[in-house]
Amino acid sequence: MANLHIFDPVTDEEIVTATSLLKDLHGDGKLSFSQVDRLDPPKKDAIKYLDIERYGGGPLPYVPRRVYAYYYVNNKMPLYKAVVNVSEKFVISSKITPEGTVGPLQPDGVAAIEKAILDHPIVQAEIAKLKLDKHTYSHPSLGKLKYTVICEPWMYGTDSIHDKIPMIQAYMYLAVDHSESNHYSIPLKFSPVFEYLSHKFVRMDYLPSGADERFITETLPLSKIPAIVEYHPDLVEDYQPREGLKPLIISQPEGPSFNVDGSKITWQGWEFRVCSNVREGFAIYDVHFKGRSLFYRASLVEMTVPYLDSRPPFHRKQAFDLGDCGFGNTANSLALGCHCLGVIKYLDTRRSDMEGNPVLIPSTICMHEQDYGLLFLHKNYRTDNSVVTRRREFVIQTIATVANYEYIINMIFDQAGAITVQVRATGILSTMPNDLNNVTDFGTIVAPGVTAAFHQHLLSFRFDTRVDGDKNSVVYDDIVPMEEDLPHNKYNVGGYQKRSFVEKSGSVDQSPFTNRTYKVINENSINPVTLKPVGYKFEMPAKQMILASPKSYNVKRAHYATKQFWVTKYGEDQLYPAGEFTNQSQRDNGLVDWADGTDSVRNTDTVVWATLALTHPPVTEQFPVMTSDFMQFLVTPASFFTQNPALDVPLASNNFNKSVYFEESVNKSASCCKSNL
Amino acid sequence: MANLHIFDPVTDEEIVTATSLLKDLHGDGKLSFSQVDRLDPPKKDAIKYLDIERYGGGPLPYVPRRVYAYYYVNNKMPLYKAVVNVSEKFVISSKITPEGTVGPLQPDGVAAIEKAILDHPIVQAEIAKLKLDKHTYSHPSLGKLKYTVICEPWMYGTDSIHDKIPMIQAYMYLAVDHSESNHYSIPLKFSPVFEYLSHKFVRMDYLPSGADERFITETLPLSKIPAIVEYHPDLVEDYQPREGLKPLIISQPEGPSFNVDGSKITWQGWEFRVCSNVREGFAIYDVHFKGRSLFYRASLVEMTVPYLDSRPPFHRKQAFDLGDCGFGNTANSLALGCHCLGVIKYLDTRRSDMEGNPVLIPSTICMHEQDYGLLFLHKNYRTDNSVVTRRREFVIQTIATVANYEYIINMIFDQAGAITVQVRATGILSTMPNDLNNVTDFGTIVAPGVTAAFHQHLLSFRFDTRVDGDKNSVVYDDIVPMEEDLPHNKYNVGGYQKRSFVEKSGSVDQSPFTNRTYKVINENSINPVTLKPVGYKFEMPAKQMILASPKSYNVKRAHYATKQFWVTKYGEDQLYPAGEFTNQSQRDNGLVDWADGTDSVRNTDTVVWATLALTHPPVTEQFPVMTSDFMQFLVTPASFFTQNPALDVPLASNNFNKSVYFEESVNKSASCCKSNL
Repeated sequence: MANLHIFDPVTDEEIVTATSLLKDLHGDGKLSFSQVDRLDPPKKDAIKYLDIERYGGGPLPYVPRRVYAYYYVNNKMPLYKAVVNVSEKFVISSKITPEGTVGPLQPDGVAAIEKAILDHPIVQAEIAKLKLDKHTYSHPSLGKLKYTVICEPWMYGTDSIHDKIPMIQAYMYLAVDHSESNHYSIPLKFSPVFEYLSHKFVRMDYLPSGADERFITETLPLSKIPAIVEYHPDLVEDYQPREGLKPLIISQPEGPSFNVDGSKITWQGWEFRVCSNVREGFAIYDVHFKGRSLFYRASLVEMTVPYLDSRPPFHRKQAFDLGDCGFGNTANSLALGCHCLGVIKYLDTRRSDMEGNPVLIPSTICMHEQDYGLLFLHKNYRTDNSVVTRRREFVIQTIATVANYEYIINMIFDQAGAITVQVRATGILSTMPNDLNNVTDFGTIVAPGVTAAFHQHLLSFRFDTRVDGDKNSVVYDDIVPMEEDLPHNKYNVGGYQKRSFVEKSGSVDQSPFTNRTYKVINENSINPVTLKPVGYKFEMPAKQMILASPKSYNVKRAHYATKQFWVTKYGEDQLYPAGEFTNQSQRDNGLVDWADGTDSVRNTDTVVWATLALTHPPVTEQFPVMTSDFMQFLVTPASFFTQNPALDVPLASNNFNKSVYFEESVNKSASCCKSNL
Repeated sequence: MANLHIFDPVTDEEIVTATSLLKDLHGDGKLSFSQVDRLDPPKKDAIKYLDIERYGGGPLPYVPRRVYAYYYVNNKMPLYKAVVNVSEKFVISSKITPEGTVGPLQPDGVAAIEKAILDHPIVQAEIAKLKLDKHTYSHPSLGKLKYTVICEPWMYGTDSIHDKIPMIQAYMYLAVDHSESNHYSIPLKFSPVFEYLSHKFVRMDYLPSGADERFITETLPLSKIPAIVEYHPDLVEDYQPREGLKPLIISQPEGPSFNVDGSKITWQGWEFRVCSNVREGFAIYDVHFKGRSLFYRASLVEMTVPYLDSRPPFHRKQAFDLGDCGFGNTANSLALGCHCLGVIKYLDTRRSDMEGNPVLIPSTICMHEQDYGLLFLHKNYRTDNSVVTRRREFVIQTIATVANYEYIINMIFDQAGAITVQVRATGILSTMPNDLNNVTDFGTIVAPGVTAAFHQHLLSFRFDTRVDGDKNSVVYDDIVPMEEDLPHNKYNVGGYQKRSFVEKSGSVDQSPFTNRTYKVINENSINPVTLKPVGYKFEMPAKQMILASPKSYNVKRAHYATKQFWVTKYGEDQLYPAGEFTNQSQRDNGLVDWADGTDSVRNTDTVVWATLALTHPPVTEQFPVMTSDFMQFLVTPASFFTQNPALDVPLASNNFNKSVYFEESVNKSASCCKSNL
């Protein structure tokens, strides 16, 4: 324990220490833990620690490690929030959260409610009405298979001020009796609602399956079950793997170019710590490039996924995948040669179960290098001499499975000081029943009888900036035409940059048609070449933000999703833009409060929040499993260095890269095959 | 010759046939060829040929091969345009182009004028005024180096109706006497103008070097020469290559997954032809995926680069890199293990020199496969079973060097029917003198005394569509909120898709905040699942279009650059959006005429034109050579197939991919090193 860095992920011992102390505190009450994880130290303490760690000047200060816990006592509201000093083993605080506060879902809690719902007599009675035993499915190789019902618990969402206990809306599906059958292909038309903690039945919702909210029917025997559109090779009928794909092997015979020392990574001038946690998946800390500070902390901090299907109860489909569930909690255990290629370093995540016991989720983060084409190149056309460098990248990847959907989060570092934040959405569309195959304009028919509704993904990335020092400012730069017919614009081709400062906490509007870019600058550090402050640029794609009405709960709960770029003054514990507790929340109590225009954000300790948005009208190519949809933004030096910081990257050569001519390879592999016979 | 496909690139014999016939035609006149290349067959003939080639139904029709040539006679205007039937060896037509038409620059023509300008007594006299022999530069390892002057010929651009003969504006720079010195680091302040054909001196321009157009000085002895910011490792002082980058080897022991048969490529369900040409670099033809037709022809067809610096003569800096020079003419010869990695197939380009002799530019196109992360993935959280596929890509790459700048054009195909069109801009910024180090808002000081002006790159990609058949329509789809408080939108979360048809030739406005996407659909082919027409989507980033005033020549000459997406009805020989002849053009005679709203474009033979735009305000990190700036758009199936067409891609496994744990690799490479000692 003595060797832990202040940012290192929570340990098993720390989880046990915290949950034991809290159990003791509550005596006879049975505690159900909703979430337990490490809490960052106060920033001022951390900064002191980091500066001494980096520059010396005394012994490393002692910074106690803290763990937070959300829990219920005796499976009842209210939700408690406690903070424990696990270094010195005492409870710092344990408080009841405000009335109606609901904690995040726990993986074990979800598994338990899923089973409870399926086993419940009312649900069983509803299932019995389908007369499933009259049907079987004959698979060409697997033979006769029965049908079975799958229960998919969903966060309940919000549509009233009255739902103040944790609830679950279960969407029910039909599958064949094989573990990998794609139940999303046959959505059923009833949807039981249960209490999450007590497992009490609340009511049965019947789902609309026509073009509007009115087409609702009672549960009747199924006369005919449509063919399930399967994705698993074991189930796809007459599955024939595509031919011709030859191995492409990525090897690093001399080892990788990165070093790992606990949570500390160094690679090609970069230094940072990568630390897993249950809510965000991971965060990076203390980011430096070529010895200069860039960010104190950076991570994905929230994603909301509102659906545009207004038919009740689908109107309540608005997941907060981080706040309601957690990307660490739902992280995939990544496998060698599958989720990333090359030489791979894996990191783990530790969570607490509902009882307070530590659970290991192995290999939730993979880190590796990749080649991504050319970094820079110039050919002197007079001599035909070229300077060519390859773009090597370092990738941190985590993948969360939140029920049907998969989110792949990549932070990609290049050799020239830039970070690409890339998100890929894959997995399976959330589907709605559509018996009559109605063509609608809010969803796409992705299989007979199945609609996938339009929806949005709005991800918030938080960058606690420390660009060349503690005090930063935020500007946005537009490129605009010069006024016409001026003496110095006689030919009307002139354009110039207009710089605007963000003076107060708030948001910046998107403006792609003036080429607007956001920059974090340091007014105390002037670039000796440009004679202007150094900076880092956020280059974001112009996108549609949250589409729901400002009157809707969707927006009240995710005000952050109304704007692309936010600036706040650093505030302790201000990490999550839709607030600390999002599950069944009534309103966003994050950015809407912190970015209210009160604080001055000029030349101070600033935090920027970048909303990456994807409006997703599904297409048939995305069913039964969707090819990754990409979105990304760039964080790049903008006159931060005095010249290209990658000039020292060694030139590309085939001695190093060992590529092969097609003709050679074809001949070689042909003779190879022959000799193998 | 009998084996040539109708789209195969021009051959040496064809060039000689064409230029010889034209020389014969003009008898005693000396011909200077400005450009010679293959001309596509008439589309109706080509379609007949392709359909019989693919589906049978008779012998392949005979389609004669044609070559076009632009040339001057006796190095004088006018410019001629001829078309030659090289199969039957006769001149189809030879015509004088309209008055003032200037042909594209020839690489040999540029080399000749560059030498002529430098050797010219007036220019030599101007150089002498600098008193360069008073200065030397001491390089730590190369010792004393003299200074020398470099001449960079530029297309003249346009600012009046009077400049009707081919002209060259030369920008002059200082370098040290070493072939790889970065002359862009010291721009000189005089700029001679010459006639391109006759090599006659026209006038000497003196360049403004202050904040506006007024700061012009005569050429004086240089009192002090600032340090050149070099990029070449031989010249960078005390160059130390960055340490720690280990080899990352991409190998395909069983050979590549693609087949090459002449110009025909097949890979993972894709079929198309890749054919080099001097103007576009390359075009792809007859594009099919999984047996279904997508495009007749697709290519980059133009790029204009207007500068926003309004100070004369910089206001005339507006390159048309394809029309004025040609991306095939300026293509790099790509080298194994440098410009792309793995198993590489190269293709060549053939051009004609000014005399009409064929010139081989070897290896101008490289084709290879790459891994780019995950294609799709789903984990069944109940069983922990995952379906994981890697995204293998097939890349066609060409790289053009147009003086200072490099453009990397990638067409990237995935296994699910999508094409990514990716452009990377690299190379060296075009620089302007700035003696007084004036901070301006139209340029960035990138080195002491050097400004790099803001500018734009506006690339036009043309897709001659054949989506599931000959007749296509174009729509744009917006996602918009439902009206509030309707009975079916009680909770105000609803949104829906609004489809609009492009009925007449013209452009579509950008609309990122309604998530607008452009789609080419086939109204005669209804997707049996969605019950709507099949389509392919163009997903383009919202960007600033050309910034100059509509009054300016910049816009008159590149009207296409005012809009992102254009739709026309197919017209024979309508290939280039700014017109066939762009060099010193007075107006765009391309899209502005073809997309004038006259033609109906619904359910007909349509062509779409996508303008990819980058406004580029330079930063210091982009000097002395810039790390690649990316831009891209996606062309993806949008309910074209009935389900994910990549379901048959084999699942990822480490048997196939042979990745390695970090710990293993570090230990292995450590012991490896030991045993090597």
